[in-house]
Amino acid sequence: MPQPVTHVSSHLEAEVTAVAEIVLSVAVAYGVEEETLTVSVDGSPVAVEEVLAPHGTRLHVLRDVPVGALVVDYRASVPAGHGPAPIPSAQDAAEPLERITYLRPSRYAESDALSSVAVAEFDGLAGKALLDAVSSWVGQHLTYVSGSSGPTDGAVKIYVEREGVCRDYAHLVIALLRARGVPARLVSVYAPGLEPMDFHAVVEARLEDGWYLVDATNLAPRQAMVRIATGRDAADTAFMTVNTGRMDFTGMRVTAIREPNLPVDDVTKLVRLR
Amino acid sequence: MPQPVTHVSSHLEAEVTAVAEIVLSVAVAYGVEEETLTVSVDGSPVAVEEVLAPHGTRLHVLRDVPVGALVVDYRASVPAGHGPAPIPSAQDAAEPLERITYLRPSRYAESDALSSVAVAEFDGLAGKALLDAVSSWVGQHLTYVSGSSGPTDGAVKIYVEREGVCRDYAHLVIALLRARGVPARLVSVYAPGLEPMDFHAVVEARLEDGWYLVDATNLAPRQAMVRIATGRDAADTAFMTVNTGRMDFTGMRVTAIREPNLPVDDVTKLVRLR
Amino acid sequence: MPQPVTHVSSHLEAEVTAVAEIVLSVAVAYGVEEETLTVSVDGSPVAVEEVLAPHGTRLHVLRDVPVGALVVDYRASVPAGHGPAPIPSAQDAAEPLERITYLRPSRYAESDALSSVAVAEFDGLAGKALLDAVSSWVGQHLTYVSGSSGPTDGAVKIYVEREGVCRDYAHLVIALLRARGVPARLVSVYAPGLEPMDFHAVVEARLEDGWYLVDATNLAPRQAMVRIATGRDAADTAFMTVNTGRMDFTGMRVTAIREPNLPVDDVTKLVRLR
Amino acid sequence: MPQPVTHVSSHLEAEVTAVAEIVLSVAVAYGVEEETLTVSVDGSPVAVEEVLAPHGTRLHVLRDVPVGALVVDYRASVPAGHGPAPIPSAQDAAEPLERITYLRPSRYAESDALSSVAVAEFDGLAGKALLDAVSSWVGQHLTYVSGSSGPTDGAVKIYVEREGVCRDYAHLVIALLRARGVPARLVSVYAPGLEPMDFHAVVEARLEDGWYLVDATNLAPRQAMVRIATGRDAADTAFMTVNTGRMDFTGMRVTAIREPNLPVDDVTKLVRLR
Repeated sequence: MPQPVTHVSSHLEAEVTAVAEIVLSVAVAYGVEEETLTVSVDGSPVAVEEVLAPHGTRLHVLRDVPVGALVVDYRASVPAGHGPAPIPSAQDAAEPLERITYLRPSRYAESDALSSVAVAEFDGLAGKALLDAVSSWVGQHLTYVSGSSGPTDGAVKIYVEREGVCRDYAHLVIALLRARGVPARLVSVYAPGLEPMDFHAVVEARLEDGWYLVDATNLAPRQAMVRIATGRDAADTAFMTVNTGRMDFTGMRVTAIREPNLPVDDVTKLVRLR
Repeated sequence: MPQPVTHVSSHLEAEVTAVAEIVLSVAVAYGVEEETLTVSVDGSPVAVEEVLAPHGTRLHVLRDVPVGALVVDYRASVPAGHGPAPIPSAQDAAEPLERITYLRPSRYAESDALSSVAVAEFDGLAGKALLDAVSSWVGQHLTYVSGSSGPTDGAVKIYVEREGVCRDYAHLVIALLRARGVPARLVSVYAPGLEPMDFHAVVEARLEDGWYLVDATNLAPRQAMVRIATGRDAADTAFMTVNTGRMDFTGMRVTAIREPNLPVDDVTKLVRLR
Repeated sequence: MPQPVTHVSSHLEAEVTAVAEIVLSVAVAYGVEEETLTVSVDGSPVAVEEVLAPHGTRLHVLRDVPVGALVVDYRASVPAGHGPAPIPSAQDAAEPLERITYLRPSRYAESDALSSVAVAEFDGLAGKALLDAVSSWVGQHLTYVSGSSGPTDGAVKIYVEREGVCRDYAHLVIALLRARGVPARLVSVYAPGLEPMDFHAVVEARLEDGWYLVDATNLAPRQAMVRIATGRDAADTAFMTVNTGRMDFTGMRVTAIREPNLPVDDVTKLVRLR
Repeated sequence: MPQPVTHVSSHLEAEVTAVAEIVLSVAVAYGVEEETLTVSVDGSPVAVEEVLAPHGTRLHVLRDVPVGALVVDYRASVPAGHGPAPIPSAQDAAEPLERITYLRPSRYAESDALSSVAVAEFDGLAGKALLDAVSSWVGQHLTYVSGSSGPTDGAVKIYVEREGVCRDYAHLVIALLRARGVPARLVSVYAPGLEPMDFHAVVEARLEDGWYLVDATNLAPRQAMVRIATGRDAADTAFMTVNTGRMDFTGMRVTAIREPNLPVDDVTKLVRLR
């Protein structure tokens, strides 16, 4: 029987209109077997510098990107079942600093502002029951509407407007969990089975016995997800960030295929990460 | 001639009303010569665990703090002129990851939301001229009003309301600098000469040749400041954070005395950190 | 048996620091039997111009108030049981324009922003059941905390923060009702029995058969309330508004005594206004 | 020489998905010579009730609109040069109540929240100089970007984000003027010469000697504008409002033609309304 493997790719296009410094976060965090990343402007290659960030996150910095048509192509194959787990993390022990960091309010997960809401909705719950309750609440109270939220919207706005996309679901889950004393962070992933295919965002929440994966959207099988970046919220995990200069994003295409296909019966299961 | 030295202290009182986990950020980051930290509830000592965070930040975690009257007493003496600088940081080279991190929007320094404002006000400026312009703008457009802002207020709110305290000045400076491509972070300090005495918050901004100290309040001499915590914004540097449980803050007293006294002529100077 | 009567008064003090135009909204709307309103600055009388507004609201405009210590004294006696009802309004038929006006979102009752919340919480309810449900929800989910909200806070902020005073309870009730298609407006009142005594704010909501009084705070008997101003929200009913100039509010005292005392058993009842 | 005349029309399409009550605000306020308004759902006519509102505003209420394809067609011809002025209003004397009303903060013109900004930017200015300064500031600091703002966005958000459409320009002008003591209101108009053609929104501001028209967008000749609705802000003037039920807006077309064409040299002039 062949070893299961996940093939992922992302293709990004943008128009750079003023010399720019750009950070990419599209590379798989752990366990890559084969991988290519090519970046060009108007067909000429652009130098890429890899920067390591916590939790295996691998950022790629493009400096002095000239004006023109920027094209980013990333492809990787990640074997499953050996090497680092698709979404590993328990070995990444919840050090005291990690616990403190992921309890803090962050740009798009304003747990401080939502503390009264979190008490009102989830008082008395703890552990897995709390994770389940928060995930269900967010899944039931939000409606997934493409384009309904903007890049500066955070959990408070989403809580009031009740609409969003995967990153918004994740931010609201994170904010509510932190407000109840559970460290939580955002993970961007390639998610085989996601419909329509795109980058996906899920939550990792820390209980006594390890990190758990929470995906209030229930849009993709969890076992097949492939970790990209891990951080406080989308400020740490956006797939493309313009540090300086100017760029108009013009298009993207993401693929993620698991061979053999994973059964979809784990979509809503609470997964404890190995 | 005696070695100059700074004596600092902080005394915090709170009523714990539900068993709590509390994080203190009152200890001096570097160069402490003598130091005591005592914590008690209703007179009984509480165990303290030290957790190291980036940039020398030393957090102190209190776990399972029982209900009762919490008292925290911290005292330290920090020699000046040798050992780590009062606000060191250039040795702490602007690693690529640090640059990326401190350009990101954060909870109270929403540089993404203020990007149009930053362009409108500071377009064409760079380097020290930009730091000076942002610091002057914030100093002139905000009014220092004790109690005018709340713990969940960020730079956007302060920008509209035009009132705040030192942390608000710092957040607005940080947000505007990041929006113009300058990495910036918040530093909590003991500040001899501050009137009225309290914890103080200033900004470190990264230019090509090192980190610079920016204090738009111009309320205290910069050379005498003693670093406590360093981070993205007040979410990383608050002197007391309740992770779980409940606590009513009831009072505090901060002291910071430099011997001999420092001349105040450096209050408004742009300081490049060694 | 003597005719029941309510005696009300308000005493306001402020420091005018730049020649000001000020609007007072302290006078009883209907049915006053005896009334005095005196206004002075540093002991010298200030001219008062009465301006009639919808629903019997009587505003008092002070023009060119000089710098100095402003003192406002208002006293009135309002007989109950004859003449206009304490909180009349059904005769004030829900004209089509009134219905349209009080369905619109307003400054502090942002029904447009809370429409998804209102659907999620109150879908399927109508009429008195809806009024009861909204009033109970707001009463149970908010905590009454003096000083917790500011003058620019509206229903969205209160909904997230879950704390406020009577005007905040009223704004949230209004916003949720409008979002469910029920015209609603704010009424400022003198409220005998309120503890501690202050101006009070309640809601009038329009059903098919008339206007109903909703007070989610349940802090005072409804039958004894005496109407002051009626409008979209606190922007229309604030007891003191500075149009131009500057003023620091320094103190106030409100009294409202019903003779004979009203039984308090109507505190939580849904009252249909005559 | 023929009498100048303006021909206007609006055509709205929507899908009603739950029996709805809808308010239209598309009819010309004054001086109409010929006019037709037809409303249908799936081709069957819908009854229309006209409701008069202040300042000549004529609202049209559709009750119990059934599920189906709603089509609204409005056409009118308005002679210029005689009868009510295109944007009349001085006869509409600034009654004391009107002054008070249009100084109040409103849903989308939060003058209370922007008071510090208004002082900082426009202190010392009054009268026409203030109108000019506010109009120029808004025109220069905002960028007109179709689709950049949403229906719940107000002046505070626009002030921070610096992008918007005509209604946003108007809301920011109104908020800043009210905060400086100048009564200001929003007027929706048909605007011959507007590019691309759409409903337009402008501001009326009250000085001692009458109401003045302020259009910070400078997108259309002022003398040719034809008044539709007048109110505190877009909450009072939206061309289509759903009071109850549900509707998806699917398309619209607006025309406004002046015969003969008006010279465009009045686009940026401060116009005092007759």
